Amino acid sequence: QELRCQCIQTHTDFISPKFITNVQLIPEGAHCSRKEIIVTLKDGTLVCLDPEAEWVMIIIKKIINRYN
Amino acid sequence: QELRCQCIQTHTDFISPKFITNVQLIPEGAHCSRKEIIVTLKDGTLVCLDPEAEWVMIIIKKIINRYN
Repeated sequence: QELRCQCIQTHTDFISPKFITNVQLIPEGAHCSRKEIIVTLKDGTLVCLDPEAEWVMIIIKKIINRYN
Repeated sequence: QELRCQCIQTHTDFISPKFITNVQLIPEGAHCSRKEIIVTLKDGTLVCLDPEAEWVMIIIKKIINRYN
C-alpha cells in the first residue's frame, strides 16, 4: 500500500456490482486524510469510487451481503 | 490480482478494526470458487479472514459504517 492517497479522481457513473471482482476499502489514516474505495473490474481496470456517493454505498453493501 | 485463490488459510483470532488499514473483498469467480477477505494491518501485514466467521462480518460492517 502506498503511503499517500491513491485516488486522484473518482468515477461518477454507475457500475453494476456484477462487473466488480475486488473491492478495497481504505479507511482514512496517516497516509491519506480521506476514505478511499477502489474496485477492480472484470477486465482488471482499477476504478476509484466516491465513498460519499449514495449509489456507491448501495453496491458495496450489495457485495457485502453476498458474503452473509 | 492473481488468477487463483489468494488465501491458503484464514486468521481465527479477533482483530480490532482499529488495526485495519485496508479491506479487500474478493467475490467468488473464475479464479477462485470461494469468497475471500484480505485485510491489511497497520504494520503492513496481509491477513486472510474467514467470510463465514461472525466476528469478521461484524468488523467489516463496522468499517463500512465509517463510510456513511
